[in-house]
Amino acid sequence: MVETLSGILKSIDCGELSAANIGEIVTLNGWVNKRRDHGGLIFADLRDRSGIVQVVFSPEVDESSFEKAESVRGEYVLALRGEVRRRPAGTENESLSTGEIEVYTSELRILNPAKTPPFYITEDVDVDEAVRLKYRYLDLRRPDMQRVMVMRHQTTKAMRDFLDDKGFLEVETPMLTKSTPEGARDYLVPSRLHPGEFFALPQSPQLFKQLLMVSGMERYFQIARCFRDEDLRADRQPEFTQLDIEMSFIDQDKVIDIMEGLVTKVFKEVLGKELSIPFTRLSYHEAMDRYGSDKPDLRFAMELVDATDIAGEVDFKVFATVAKNGGQIKGVNAKGCGSFTRREIDELTEFVGIYGAKGLAWMIVQDEGVKSPIAKFFTEEQLAALVKRLNGEPGDLLLFVADKPAVVADALGHIRLELARRLDLIDKEELNFVWVMDFPLVEYDEAEDRYVAMHHPFTAPLEEDLPLLDDSPEQVRAQAYDLVLNGVELGGGSIRIHRRDIQEKMFSIIGLSEEEAREKFGFLLDAFEYGTPPHGGIAFGLDRWVMLMAGRDTIRDCIAFPKTQSSTDMMTKAPSTVSNKQLKELHLRPGHQGKK
Amino acid sequence: MVETLSGILKSIDCGELSAANIGEIVTLNGWVNKRRDHGGLIFADLRDRSGIVQVVFSPEVDESSFEKAESVRGEYVLALRGEVRRRPAGTENESLSTGEIEVYTSELRILNPAKTPPFYITEDVDVDEAVRLKYRYLDLRRPDMQRVMVMRHQTTKAMRDFLDDKGFLEVETPMLTKSTPEGARDYLVPSRLHPGEFFALPQSPQLFKQLLMVSGMERYFQIARCFRDEDLRADRQPEFTQLDIEMSFIDQDKVIDIMEGLVTKVFKEVLGKELSIPFTRLSYHEAMDRYGSDKPDLRFAMELVDATDIAGEVDFKVFATVAKNGGQIKGVNAKGCGSFTRREIDELTEFVGIYGAKGLAWMIVQDEGVKSPIAKFFTEEQLAALVKRLNGEPGDLLLFVADKPAVVADALGHIRLELARRLDLIDKEELNFVWVMDFPLVEYDEAEDRYVAMHHPFTAPLEEDLPLLDDSPEQVRAQAYDLVLNGVELGGGSIRIHRRDIQEKMFSIIGLSEEEAREKFGFLLDAFEYGTPPHGGIAFGLDRWVMLMAGRDTIRDCIAFPKTQSSTDMMTKAPSTVSNKQLKELHLRPGHQGKK
Repeated sequence: MVETLSGILKSIDCGELSAANIGEIVTLNGWVNKRRDHGGLIFADLRDRSGIVQVVFSPEVDESSFEKAESVRGEYVLALRGEVRRRPAGTENESLSTGEIEVYTSELRILNPAKTPPFYITEDVDVDEAVRLKYRYLDLRRPDMQRVMVMRHQTTKAMRDFLDDKGFLEVETPMLTKSTPEGARDYLVPSRLHPGEFFALPQSPQLFKQLLMVSGMERYFQIARCFRDEDLRADRQPEFTQLDIEMSFIDQDKVIDIMEGLVTKVFKEVLGKELSIPFTRLSYHEAMDRYGSDKPDLRFAMELVDATDIAGEVDFKVFATVAKNGGQIKGVNAKGCGSFTRREIDELTEFVGIYGAKGLAWMIVQDEGVKSPIAKFFTEEQLAALVKRLNGEPGDLLLFVADKPAVVADALGHIRLELARRLDLIDKEELNFVWVMDFPLVEYDEAEDRYVAMHHPFTAPLEEDLPLLDDSPEQVRAQAYDLVLNGVELGGGSIRIHRRDIQEKMFSIIGLSEEEAREKFGFLLDAFEYGTPPHGGIAFGLDRWVMLMAGRDTIRDCIAFPKTQSSTDMMTKAPSTVSNKQLKELHLRPGHQGKK
Repeated sequence: MVETLSGILKSIDCGELSAANIGEIVTLNGWVNKRRDHGGLIFADLRDRSGIVQVVFSPEVDESSFEKAESVRGEYVLALRGEVRRRPAGTENESLSTGEIEVYTSELRILNPAKTPPFYITEDVDVDEAVRLKYRYLDLRRPDMQRVMVMRHQTTKAMRDFLDDKGFLEVETPMLTKSTPEGARDYLVPSRLHPGEFFALPQSPQLFKQLLMVSGMERYFQIARCFRDEDLRADRQPEFTQLDIEMSFIDQDKVIDIMEGLVTKVFKEVLGKELSIPFTRLSYHEAMDRYGSDKPDLRFAMELVDATDIAGEVDFKVFATVAKNGGQIKGVNAKGCGSFTRREIDELTEFVGIYGAKGLAWMIVQDEGVKSPIAKFFTEEQLAALVKRLNGEPGDLLLFVADKPAVVADALGHIRLELARRLDLIDKEELNFVWVMDFPLVEYDEAEDRYVAMHHPFTAPLEEDLPLLDDSPEQVRAQAYDLVLNGVELGGGSIRIHRRDIQEKMFSIIGLSEEEAREKFGFLLDAFEYGTPPHGGIAFGLDRWVMLMAGRDTIRDCIAFPKTQSSTDMMTKAPSTVSNKQLKELHLRPGHQGKK
């Protein structure tokens, strides 16, 4: 039996009820969370977005409701009217905000029955993610997922309130744009009206937001959908959302200052946490040097220590060769890990192999000296100097990697994180923000045999490094900054190039011919000639921001309808085949798309 | 010469300056709006987003600034420091908020020079739209376009504030979705990981917002980009934005009530206008009957009057035939238009032809009787009855169309609007809102030889019309409502079907086989079985809403980077060809896309 809602719309949300409502007649609409019979009565927990309240069906109050209630099961949708009463002494539920009261039903309507769901509609359900994604409409009914969605809403609301208050205008930029792949792969959209031509979905609103600066908008933002057709390693999604910001007439300090205000406001409004600003700033060089990462987690120390000068001089061939060829020998002190078994150390050796390190040297500091397979290559003085350099004390495990600087940083940077996890060094409550600055403008891409932009080719060089641009582009530092929270990149940005001549030089450095540059970015180069102000900005990954605030492990939990690693929507089964008529209209050949 | 902004960031916006700042040293950044030499001084109007202020370069204050200023032209980007002084008596500019003061420059930097723009950066410039769109970054620099962008921002901010306050959650739904064309054509996105398969860009978030209701979100909204690959007749864009709203546990009255609150808040916050609610409601039937349109402009009367009973009985073959075949003869009274020339009336006849009317009968009411080519077919009494029916008075022009009801409504509905324009009957300041309700659920599509949903196939029938669903679907009214402002559809929505059996019946009525329905919408049908609440919602066209508030003639003026009628971005030249590598990765055959 299905009944209508007419005349019985909710007068109050379930979770809003309290002892203050005792004696009132209320109308409730919601889902049956649980139902049970007890002592000639039927009890149900009625749930809506606001929370849960206990409702009671008694034959003495309303015979017909009681009879209907006998057929009610979990997830049935009900509308009911009833009186709010105090629960009998001893039956209160302190874990529920509505636990002092219950609602005695005088009228019940079953708005919709429900089949038994494939998993429980409850907190932290233990079920395969594929099932959760297929039945996402049920997964999102679970209270922990609802909280994330509420938090996401609150986050964007707080962002918009802050930015509006600071004079930023939200401006929408196109989704159907021009394909100018530089970095990631574009998603393409065939044009029906222009046979053989394609739109691209934006990887970011970068060019449009810069053009808005040319147009004098001065302060722009947008919470924008972006698209990258990459293989979804790690925690990526084909479409993701970023808080995209751009300002004119600013410098790095000004951008950072405003953004610290934004971050502070959001964490305060959404989590009630007070952050202390200004955040720490590290140069890229220092971050790589001390933490082996350009997104260092500063919640714990265990810094990387350079020992090339000491270890490079010893009679150990591996070290000596690395030192001679301009490599590095660096170590970390795993405090108190001197008791690690040989097997644990072997695991760590295997672990650094993932990051390209050919080996992991180790020393255990003991009262009586150093225990290590390579101790024999060292003099007592050299060992003592090394232990001192790493602040080694008895009971410590010193770990060394010798290789090219990039490999040393990557391997030790990751071992640092791995040890912190194993040793439980991280305070989960801490929110540690750091700005990483002064990135290199370009890096050399061996595979492509050319320079590529480290951020993107619109990033401005530091003024003082401009003279190096012609002959030593790899030495030029960019006016770029990343904001890192607990070792995760929250956002990144830069001051942009606003002069045509420098932009053209940048395109040339990364190997774009004049013709290609004009073909792809001619409109931007032209725009720069009509009075373009100095400008810069930043973009934050919203999905990841919410994930960090909500304490979830994957951004999929922070997106209402995410895709799987193979870029599929498990619920709607997109992508899918389409009709030949659709393909023909788009000038695509039916039947050929499946074959390479 | 290009100089840096370092150390000379703006301390205040140009438009913020007033007599209150006299004596202060300020730093300004902006564009040169105008420059002129006068009496050994150089004057410039410096413009930023906030407004304009006059700056003065005097060799006595700073020789170097004065010399630089000689090279300055319109749209140059400047940074300057100077003292705010009161303008000499008699040189104040009352039309400018900063007109009492001027800034004497003690330091000037030229941040970027500018070529002469292709059109003036000024209010209401008279230049071809193609040129404006090509140089959109300059077009958006014009004050009237900046105002529209500010208004758009304020509009979405007010919407979000209102909805947040009412407990709505903004939830983002996917842009890469499944193709389920029903109505308009989908934009498709080829999948790289799934050869031969495609995503579709959403025509609206309809299905996802309904699934969010299944998931218990209760109150959802989103300012969402939508895509329809239609031929861009009239004022359409391939991508447009809608304020998308959905609610659970509501009925039509509740939706309308909340939406009136929303509209009232937005018009108050953005335009400072107080609207009076509730808005008028008209049934679809009444709207068609009285105004010949389902989006009637109620700012003027000139209602359509049915005269079939009188005119169908006369000895005029055209009228008699129409009446006999179930058609209508209806007229409007063009008040005071009895002086129209024969040529003007011929123009109107041609005009109704556009809407399928085969002719336009006319009568001029004169003191001495009725002047009309068809008067001879009428008796005196019949003429008098007709004139009376249309409230004709001497000097009035009565216009009649006789045809099938749909043609009569369309032709007379349009003639009504055309006459209102010609006679200037419309008060441009008035904001006339009306809800049009009780739409037919389906209409018969002659071309497709099947019923099609009038709104979309998820619209719920009126409860009381459910018994008609099987045998007379065309007589079933929908729980659908459109909000019309000044004859323009601002938004539309409905209560949705939330029961699987009714949804399946609806699919069957519009000709979807069980298999097709399952293939396309299986996930929705499944979802309906797990406890789906009664729900409904609405969507407003944001671009059009802003257009109406800003008093612009096209939505292109309300979109930062719109496309042309041929779906091209004039600035970036999208769509464009892409590389063979890109096509191959998407399993598309290079070189074949251009040929049908």
